[in-house]
Parts: sequence; structure tokens; C-alpha cells
Amino acid sequence: MSGNSFGKLFTVTSFGESHGPALGCIIDGCPPGLELSEADMQRDLDRRKPGTSRHTTQRREADEVRILSGVFEGKTTGTPIGLLIENTDQRSKDYSKISEQFRPAHADYTYMHKYGVRDYRGGGRSSARETAMRVAAGAVARKFLEQRLGIRIRGYLSQLGPIKAEKLDWDQVHQNPFFCPDADKVPEMEAYMDALRKEGDSIGARINVVADGVPPGLGEPIFDRLDADLAHALMSINAVKGVEIGAGFDCIDQKGTEHRDEMTPEGFLSNNAGGVLGGISSGQPIVASIALKPTSSLRLSGRSIDVNGDPCEVITTGRHDPCVGIRATPIAEAMMAIVLMDHYLRHRGQNADVSVSTPVIGQL
Amino acid sequence: MSGNSFGKLFTVTSFGESHGPALGCIIDGCPPGLELSEADMQRDLDRRKPGTSRHTTQRREADEVRILSGVFEGKTTGTPIGLLIENTDQRSKDYSKISEQFRPAHADYTYMHKYGVRDYRGGGRSSARETAMRVAAGAVARKFLEQRLGIRIRGYLSQLGPIKAEKLDWDQVHQNPFFCPDADKVPEMEAYMDALRKEGDSIGARINVVADGVPPGLGEPIFDRLDADLAHALMSINAVKGVEIGAGFDCIDQKGTEHRDEMTPEGFLSNNAGGVLGGISSGQPIVASIALKPTSSLRLSGRSIDVNGDPCEVITTGRHDPCVGIRATPIAEAMMAIVLMDHYLRHRGQNADVSVSTPVIGQL
Amino acid sequence: MSGNSFGKLFTVTSFGESHGPALGCIIDGCPPGLELSEADMQRDLDRRKPGTSRHTTQRREADEVRILSGVFEGKTTGTPIGLLIENTDQRSKDYSKISEQFRPAHADYTYMHKYGVRDYRGGGRSSARETAMRVAAGAVARKFLEQRLGIRIRGYLSQLGPIKAEKLDWDQVHQNPFFCPDADKVPEMEAYMDALRKEGDSIGARINVVADGVPPGLGEPIFDRLDADLAHALMSINAVKGVEIGAGFDCIDQKGTEHRDEMTPEGFLSNNAGGVLGGISSGQPIVASIALKPTSSLRLSGRSIDVNGDPCEVITTGRHDPCVGIRATPIAEAMMAIVLMDHYLRHRGQNADVSVSTPVIGQL
Amino acid sequence: MSGNSFGKLFTVTSFGESHGPALGCIIDGCPPGLELSEADMQRDLDRRKPGTSRHTTQRREADEVRILSGVFEGKTTGTPIGLLIENTDQRSKDYSKISEQFRPAHADYTYMHKYGVRDYRGGGRSSARETAMRVAAGAVARKFLEQRLGIRIRGYLSQLGPIKAEKLDWDQVHQNPFFCPDADKVPEMEAYMDALRKEGDSIGARINVVADGVPPGLGEPIFDRLDADLAHALMSINAVKGVEIGAGFDCIDQKGTEHRDEMTPEGFLSNNAGGVLGGISSGQPIVASIALKPTSSLRLSGRSIDVNGDPCEVITTGRHDPCVGIRATPIAEAMMAIVLMDHYLRHRGQNADVSVSTPVIGQL
Repeated sequence: MSGNSFGKLFTVTSFGESHGPALGCIIDGCPPGLELSEADMQRDLDRRKPGTSRHTTQRREADEVRILSGVFEGKTTGTPIGLLIENTDQRSKDYSKISEQFRPAHADYTYMHKYGVRDYRGGGRSSARETAMRVAAGAVARKFLEQRLGIRIRGYLSQLGPIKAEKLDWDQVHQNPFFCPDADKVPEMEAYMDALRKEGDSIGARINVVADGVPPGLGEPIFDRLDADLAHALMSINAVKGVEIGAGFDCIDQKGTEHRDEMTPEGFLSNNAGGVLGGISSGQPIVASIALKPTSSLRLSGRSIDVNGDPCEVITTGRHDPCVGIRATPIAEAMMAIVLMDHYLRHRGQNADVSVSTPVIGQL
Repeated sequence: MSGNSFGKLFTVTSFGESHGPALGCIIDGCPPGLELSEADMQRDLDRRKPGTSRHTTQRREADEVRILSGVFEGKTTGTPIGLLIENTDQRSKDYSKISEQFRPAHADYTYMHKYGVRDYRGGGRSSARETAMRVAAGAVARKFLEQRLGIRIRGYLSQLGPIKAEKLDWDQVHQNPFFCPDADKVPEMEAYMDALRKEGDSIGARINVVADGVPPGLGEPIFDRLDADLAHALMSINAVKGVEIGAGFDCIDQKGTEHRDEMTPEGFLSNNAGGVLGGISSGQPIVASIALKPTSSLRLSGRSIDVNGDPCEVITTGRHDPCVGIRATPIAEAMMAIVLMDHYLRHRGQNADVSVSTPVIGQL
Repeated sequence: MSGNSFGKLFTVTSFGESHGPALGCIIDGCPPGLELSEADMQRDLDRRKPGTSRHTTQRREADEVRILSGVFEGKTTGTPIGLLIENTDQRSKDYSKISEQFRPAHADYTYMHKYGVRDYRGGGRSSARETAMRVAAGAVARKFLEQRLGIRIRGYLSQLGPIKAEKLDWDQVHQNPFFCPDADKVPEMEAYMDALRKEGDSIGARINVVADGVPPGLGEPIFDRLDADLAHALMSINAVKGVEIGAGFDCIDQKGTEHRDEMTPEGFLSNNAGGVLGGISSGQPIVASIALKPTSSLRLSGRSIDVNGDPCEVITTGRHDPCVGIRATPIAEAMMAIVLMDHYLRHRGQNADVSVSTPVIGQL
Repeated sequence: MSGNSFGKLFTVTSFGESHGPALGCIIDGCPPGLELSEADMQRDLDRRKPGTSRHTTQRREADEVRILSGVFEGKTTGTPIGLLIENTDQRSKDYSKISEQFRPAHADYTYMHKYGVRDYRGGGRSSARETAMRVAAGAVARKFLEQRLGIRIRGYLSQLGPIKAEKLDWDQVHQNPFFCPDADKVPEMEAYMDALRKEGDSIGARINVVADGVPPGLGEPIFDRLDADLAHALMSINAVKGVEIGAGFDCIDQKGTEHRDEMTPEGFLSNNAGGVLGGISSGQPIVASIALKPTSSLRLSGRSIDVNGDPCEVITTGRHDPCVGIRATPIAEAMMAIVLMDHYLRHRGQNADVSVSTPVIGQL
């Protein structure tokens, strides 16, 4: 299986470049009988869509997804689901300059060395444009998980550059263009982004994702632990440089007595584990956090080299997100949904007939 | 492919429990013609081996590996390499108590809910004992990468609880029981560990791993990016709760102009990317960092439940590492070696005939 | 990886139902730098296309394929190739009757028991309509194999019901609607098919496929032997009930001295092996043969049951091939091309640096 | 996943050479809770074991299997099962001659061209010795299928060279050294084999395998159809040159009305399909048949070349089966068991909650 597929029983395979005719994906392994329509995916796609506020790229894509197979009379049939999004706003511009230069911190240089050729129009395959299909596929997983198992997956921006959210009010997350759960910080974020845009610079961000209602038992040690697959999925999102589960890097100076989540018949007393013990879900909320680097497409000139290895100065024009983290919330949610879905099916395949007398305890 | 295999062309499949008769693994896909003997693996196994200082578990395992296949007249043949380590120090003790209780922060509870049964002797499959086979398999990858490509993979402990290494002196790493590259911090670490042992508590740690000499081009976007597979591999190590590539979480409040690694004909000017751009190696050193949680096996009593869901107090006796991070350095190196090896073969498979006129620049 | 993907490094993933809006596939792992256009695929698609003679179904599909990604400036880029064929001739008919009955020897009954639901329009996913995407993907593999390695893959119909081709004249294969290499048998086949059509019955066929120019070394024992993967690929084609490599079932009463292909410096003296020894290509032509069952869609009434398990009589109306074998030649070629391509990349990945002093001998 | 693994959820990975220290395999994905001991495997291993009659090789291997992991207190735990068989009868002989020559119809020449090196002792990895691990792994699958689903898998030799079994009396199969179900033919077979041994020649055979009690619904179209995976598994057995499902090659001159298996509420009226429709099990018996070529290891001299490409005459001494087909019955059963097990788990993973009101009909 080559690098554009993810998942072993719920398998998402994707194609498409930023400025090609279309993006698409195939979901193979979705169980039959799930009610599914384009609207289910459109909701999440619209949350990811560019151009919805002045803080994201002004590229405008309808991002209208079409279901081409796998759904019959409104329900999935168990056969592969083909999805397609036509690219509509491929601005015809002169790419001759960028075709000869490598933008610093971009995939230009590495694609050239890997493939010997690259589609330089808008970053081609390395563009975050491909994440649209992740969101569409994730929406299918999410619907199944919600309907059949009562699992709810939600994310939020917990930090934008130096500004940290200090409150987690889920109701606020969709009330502002940042997916920020702390309403008090939104004005500060807006001012920060406005200044940044003027400067021409960009900034990093942190996104947290939480899944509630996950049953215990998901995860396939020793290599396909649930947290390992989550790390894989989340690190595969463009611009992500770090992944934490539960306490994450804070565990370094925690003592064992502090870190360990004690258990009572009423539930776990804390969740430093982030819902995963020994690579298997514990019934607590699954908690992950990711770091997204600042966009590298800047109009501020940077030193680089051209295809001949000669030095040059690169300025990136065009429409870019000054903080890619802002739009990453639905993408991270989607990847978590895909991982949980895949692991649910794998677990069911191997352990469907397991019965356990020990009661499930949740989070206190 | 179930959860105990890792890698697509260089595939490591592992078996074995802490207190079973043996551990083993099969390496499938190792290219033929590599000189290989047990000694190549023993070197790394000995670095991981318990009982080498007072700061690790006193369990004593010879950890002697045998090659059972795939090597003929001192060289690999291209057929699968079978490896075996017999368990020698399976102390016969009374497990009746622990068999009925779930140790907090352990895999006991989740294994029970997943499988309906668990081998409670020493943690069974969830014990870090299985990492011995990772180290053995990693040694094969490491040797190939070093001999054929000049890649060198090295790790060190960069933080033990509150104590951070402030210097990176590679020569120091093997001069102390912590894999600490800063000799000045070693006495402090020793005192800290001695106090901790008296207390009966445990502590977390941070390990960094660096690969030098990796050619540009390794990594398979969009899902099997090199950094995504590294995150998968490293997060699959017992006790790991976080993974960073390059600047990692520090990128959150970096601006684009600060984070981007500018390029000159003489080399990259910085390495915030950690050697990976767009999911593909750039020719810079690959840099990863992981957080390991404190051991949960403590003699300090903790609240928990038993198999009937009733409350209980758990005390873990037996021999345990107060800081699992200490022995994790060779394991993290091994997983990085396996990932790079697998990606080298995958890249070669798909792009063996690519020729690029752009010169490779390294790190300045 | 779920059931709609084939190949490990050259991976084809397919979607689409007979009467859905479109069929599509994603080819992941095609090496970069291959010149590719729709015309390369159209040639093979046209050979498979229905409605080209009175002996095949009269359903008319343009089968026009569009490349949606992975090709830039006329060459593959190493990123996934998205292909799409819109369904144009989905005749709106009343499926209400068939939706309640299971046609004998069809997938109706098994799809219902597997998925609990089925898209009964034209057979849905179980229709041979999906083979169009196999042909399109196979054309890409075929072009690479031909251009880079000089491999030529050709097939022909060697038996139609009771009528066996007795001569193998490659030039004849495309001179008749049967892909028959023996011109003398064509009139007999035409008469036979005309009679059959009148009767309302159908008939089986045998197709042979041969690949010339395959280098020695392809195949991954012990499970992914080249012949095992070929058997998998060919048996996965609709209606295939048997697969032979080389002498096939004739080897049952061959003696060892008769079966073994002796070797001389000038080449192998025979090819009972069909080009595969120990699961690895020998440099001889790869020879496979498949049996295709007669179509089950007949206007001659057959006993069956309905969705309630009650007895019924089924008559299949609509447009169907009286001999599906006729159009199977390009499909079998395509599957052989995909297998060889995948194995070439896998072999290169693991053994790219092998050098052998023993000369390659071909077929005498 | 490299070539020495088979199965996606029930994954068997194998290692070992004919004359190495040991053979082994890892079964990953076996559900927990299955009672399992070495005796369960030994039964099948003993049926495959050489040296049990004068008609098979006189090499004597105890073939005693040890379970190294994955079983606790007599039951599987859901973790990987490590199996080991030590090689005991590696006769130390002079291989210097054969190391320089390629035996005709052997893997010698192709292994050399693939890997650049080969373990020539007894055929190394290409020896049928590896099938011992297939049998051991198959025994685990078989036990699960029998205990949990009531599936019974049985095979027999249906043809030995020119001699065809004409009766299928299951009780006879284990009453003679040929696994022949027709007692009347046994004397003829014995005489034939005795003559053959004197001659120094070898002969092919046909083996049939039947699985009863398979529920409808197993198989993953379009590529991992049940019959396609069976073809893969069976063709991967040493010496197999052809695979048939149900009517197999006989379907070529069957008419549709003759081939189609009509259905009644009481059951299917025939089984030309061999229990698979559209790639999915129908509830009828799964019927497969394979052709095994005659052994190539003959003491009758054959023309060949040496490692320099020069002509030579090869005589194979040593202990070899004059008809490898004879011992292939348990191997073919094992591979069918592994395929059915894997597909059962895959089906359950994706469709565990499907409920169908249509009654299951069996075979009339």
C-alpha cells in the first residue's frame, strides 16, 4: 500500500493537486447501512473552507463534494465510496519564476529531489488543499461513530502564537473565526492577526482534539497502538511538527504518583493518559494536541537556491493563510475520526466475541 | 497486516511476553549481501539491557539473540531473518494478587477490556520487555544504513525529570548510565535518582534522536510522510506520550521568518524543520524528540479497582525501572533506524531511476 | 487495506457501480517521469468496450477516461493518478422485480448476505463494468513496462466453448471480434455465437496471456510469489473459475523428466514452468491461462428464491454478453501488467543493488 | 508488508530455511479465548511429515512445534503466537557441487538472479520444508473455524499421475499413504510409485480441498474476493501450477443453463460455483482443486548451466519426494483454513452488525 492510503479496514486513499482539475478520495471499508449524503460532509468541509474570514487565505473554493459510488437509496452499501471535489478557483497565473526556485521551508526542494519533477502550481500535491478530502472522509467516519457508538469528536485552537486560550467553553468554539474556546482571547487574536498580516509574516498554533464516548479496547499493540496511529495521522497533516497524547511533554517532570490516573468504581480520577493505556483506549476521553508551524509562504523575502543550486531571494505572492493552524481544527478532528473508525473495525474483527464481566468505568 | 508488524518493505513482526519462554521477531525485506552476525545486534541489546546500573531495574536478562534464518555464510540472503531471545530470568512469583487487580496507569485494565483475558505475569505483552526485539531489528537496519549510505543514528537523554542537559557532547553519552550528553549534569541526575528510589516514586524523561547523512527524498506523502511514520514508530514505544520533529512545539510561537530554514548553496542555515519538508527528508539531520512518562509500577499505594469493579489499593512489588526513559535511548534509535530503512527501500522501489541535476545541499 | 486495492508499491484502488454516476480509480506508486495521456488508456479501453460487435452486449458506453491528477506537462509526477469514467448509458428501467429476486449464479444472494443491502441496478458493484478501471490502470503499468523494460504483454482467446484455437498467429488476434489467434476458427465461432444468441444461452471461454521480456528476479516468496500474485489478480476478474501457469493442470501426468525445463547457455529448452521458478520470474515468457464461466444473465428461465426465501422463476432481460470471455482479453492483460509492475517496483526496492555475474539466458 | 506474510487480520509471517537451525512463524490476529496447545498443531504436522511411508522422502524430521507466546493458561490471549520448529535432520553433506550449478526446474537460477546469493543447502528458503509452518498456522485457524463456526476443511488426492480417484469416500482418505479417497485405486498407485522410484523419475498430482459449513458473506470484492485470495494462497504452495474453484476449467464448454447453480428454498441444486458467487461465499461447500508438478530433484541427469553460464549435467542426489503432491493435502487444507479465517475476521470487522432477513439456504 503506497503512501496515499490511510487505515487498514477503513481505508482512505486520496489524490489531487492544488491546481489540478479535481481532488478525490476513495473510502474503502465503510460498513453498510449508514445513512449518508453530501450534506453530511459539506458541514465539515465548510468549516475548513478558505475565505470565510479575513484571517484566512482569500482563495475561494466552493469545495462541493459529490458522492460517486457506495451509496444507494441514501445508505452506504459496503462498497467503496468515491468522492470528488472539482477545483474551481485555479487562478491562472505566471508560475515561471517559482518553477525555477525553491521556496524556503516548502516541499519544493524535497519533491524535486524525490521525484525529479514537481507540479509547482500552488504547491501541487504538497499543498494543504488535499486536506479537503481528509475532512470529507473524516465526516463519514464521524457520522458512523456518532450514530452507532455515541462517540463525539471535537477540536479547538488552544494557542495562537503567544496567545493561549485559558478557558474551554465548547459553545464558543464556533462563535469566532479561530475555533477558540475562550471568548475573552478572541479580540487579542484578531488584533494579533491583523498586525501580522500587515507585517507580512505568519505564526504557529496549537490545536487540541478530544473524543468522548470511545469504548475501552480500541488499539492494536504493539506497533499499531491507538496513540501511535493517532500520532501518525496527526503528524501527516501539513505543517504539524509535534503531537501529544494526554499530558504529553508535561509528563517529563511528573512523578509517577502524580501522573498515574487512579481508578475508582465511579471512574478514573484524572486523565494524564489522554484516554490510552498500553496503546488501547481506556474509556476515558481521547485527548491529543498538535503544534502547527507558521506558514512558509511569505511576501517577506528569504534566501534560497534555484534549481541549478545558485543563490536567490524568494518572495511568495499569491493567497496564503498567515496561520495555517486556524483552519486545522476540522482537519485534526477528521483524522482522529478516521483513526477511531479504523480501530473500531479492526477491534471488532479480531475480538467481536469477547465478553468481559469487569464493568466499564468512565471519567469521573 | 495486524498490529505487531511495522514497515512496508522492511517489515518487522514481533512476538513475546515478559514471562513467556522467549521473545522473537522476523525481519522481512532486508536486502541481501549485508554482513550480519549476532554481535551486530548484541552491541545495541547490551545498551538497552536492564541491570547495568543501580538506576535501572535489577531484573537480569542475558538478552542473547540468535539468528535462526536469513543469513548464510555471514551475509543476509534476502529471505526473512528470524531472531530469538530466550527469557532466562522469569522469576517464579505469586501473581495471584495482581491477577485480580488493575494497576493504575497500566495496560491491565485495557487489555482485559480488549481481549477478555490477560497474561498478568510481569505485564505480559504490554511489558517493555518486547522492546528488546525492536533493538535487535533496529540494529540490522542501522548497519545497512551506515554501511551503504553512511547514515548515523544517535540518541541521548536530554532531560530527566526537572534536570535538563545543557550541552550536547556526543562523547559523553556513553560515559554515564543515563545516556546524558552533558557530563556536568550527571551528578545531579544520580542524586535525583537515588532520592527517587528511596521515595519509591518514578519520573519522566525526554530523549532526542538524530540521524545524520540521510539523503534527500525519503518519505511518502501524503499519509506516509517520513515524519508521520517516525511519529508512529516513536509513539509506539512504551510510555511515550509526545513526539516532536525539529522545532516541535516551539514552532507555535515562532513567526514564519524565524521558523523557515533559509537555504544557500553551502547548505541550510538552520534546522527548525528537523530535516523533513513536506514529509520528505531534506538532506539535513533528522531530529526527533520524545517524552516518556514516569513508570507506573510503584511500591507507593494507589487507588484502583479489581476485576469485579470493586475498589482496592494497589502496591506494585517486583523489579522496575524508576525512570523508563533512561533505557529508552537505544529503543528510540532503533525505531528511527527501522523507519529510515523502510523508507529508503520504498523510495528506491518507486524512484530508483530518478535523476536530479539540482545539487544536494546539506546543513551549513 | 480493504478489498478494493491491489498491489503493494504500484497500488490500484477502484470504486464505482454499474449504474452509478461514475467509475474511478487511484493509481498510487507510479514512478515519475512517464509520459502519459488519456490516449494511452483509451486504446485498451476501446478494446474492452462493449457494443463493438454483435457478439457482445449492446450496452453502449463511451468509456472516456479523464486523468484528474498525477500528470503534469504530459508526464507522471510520482503522486497518485486519479482516473474517472462517467457512466453515460445507465438505461432507466424498472428494477423493482429484480430487486426482490436473486438471479441464479449471480452475486445477488451473496451481496445480500454480506452487506444486508445491495445496489441491484445492473448488478451494482458486482457488475463487470468495474473492469474498465482495471484496463485503464493496466494501461499505465503496461506503458511503463514497455518503455522502460521492453516487456510486452499480449493475450488471446484460445477456446470459445467447444471450439479451440489451434494456431497462435498474433497478427490475427485483433482481426476478429473474438481476439482469436486462429483465423480458420473465426467463422465457426461466429456461427456458434449466432446460434447461442438465438437460443438465449451463454458459453464459457479460455483466455491466455503472455508477457515477453520480463527480466529474471521478479516475485517475493514465499507467499507473494509472482505466480501466486498472478493467480490472485486473474482470479479476481469476474467470471474466472480457474488459473494456470505454464503447463498448468497438464503437469499432473507429466513426469519430472518431461516437465522440467532444461537449460543451456543459449536458453531454456522448454517452458512448462510458464516463466516462473520458485515463485520468481526466470527470464522466460510468463504464460498464464484462465477459464471464464458462461454468463449467468439469461433470458431462459431459471429456478431461484426471492428475498423472503420463497421459490421463484427468474428471467434476466437487459443487455448482456453471451460470452463474457470475449471481452476479457484486455482485462487479463491489464491484470498481468499491474502484477508485473508491482513486482518490478518491489524487487527494485529490496534488491536494487544486487549484481549477478551469471548471464541471463532467455528462451531458446 | 513483504512477501513472507499472508492475511490481513489473521496474519501469518514465516521464516526458515531447509538446513538452517529452525523454522518459525508468527500468527498475529488470532482472537483470544481459543483453547490451544502444541497437540492441536502436531496432529496436522504429523500428516505432512516426511518419512511416513516408502513413497515420500526418507528425510526424518521430528517436526515438533513449540508455542513461544500468545497462549496463557491454555488459551490464546489475542497477542501474537510465536511458533518454532527446530531442524533436526540437517544431514551434513558436501554441497560444493550443487552450489555451482543450477538444477533444472528449481529455484536455484531465479534465487541467484533475484538476490545475488543463495543458501544452496537443501534448497534453502525455496525448499518445501517451509510448508511445515503453514500447516502449524493452518491448524490454529482450523481449530477456531471448527469450534466457533462448525467449519470443516478436508482434502484428498484426486489424481496421481495418470491414475484418477473415481470415488470420494472420506473415510478412506487417511487409510492409505496417498490421501486417496478411492480404496480401489490404492494398489495401482502403490505399484505406480514403486516403478517410478526404480526409474528415478517423478510425477505430478491433483489435490482437492473442500470446506463445509462456511457461512455466506465471506470475501472482499473486488480484488480480495474469496476465490482470488484462495487462488493466491494455493498457488503460493511449492510446485502448484494451477488452481480451480468449483467447475474450474470445465466451465469453458459449459452453457449458462448448465453451469448456473439454481436455487430453491431447500438449497442450491448444484455447485459449479464451488461455493463462491461474486467473490463471496454462498453457504455452499467451498471447493478448490490444485495441480502439483512433478518434483524436479531427480537422479536422472538433466542439462543445465553453472554459475558462469557454462553448460553442465546435473544429477540430484539426496532424499526427495517422487511425488510432492502426496504430502500436499494437509498443506492445501492449511492454506484454505488461513484464508477462511482471515476473511471471517475481515467480514466481521466490516459487517458485524449486518442483519439479513433472507434465510440461508445450503446445498441440497
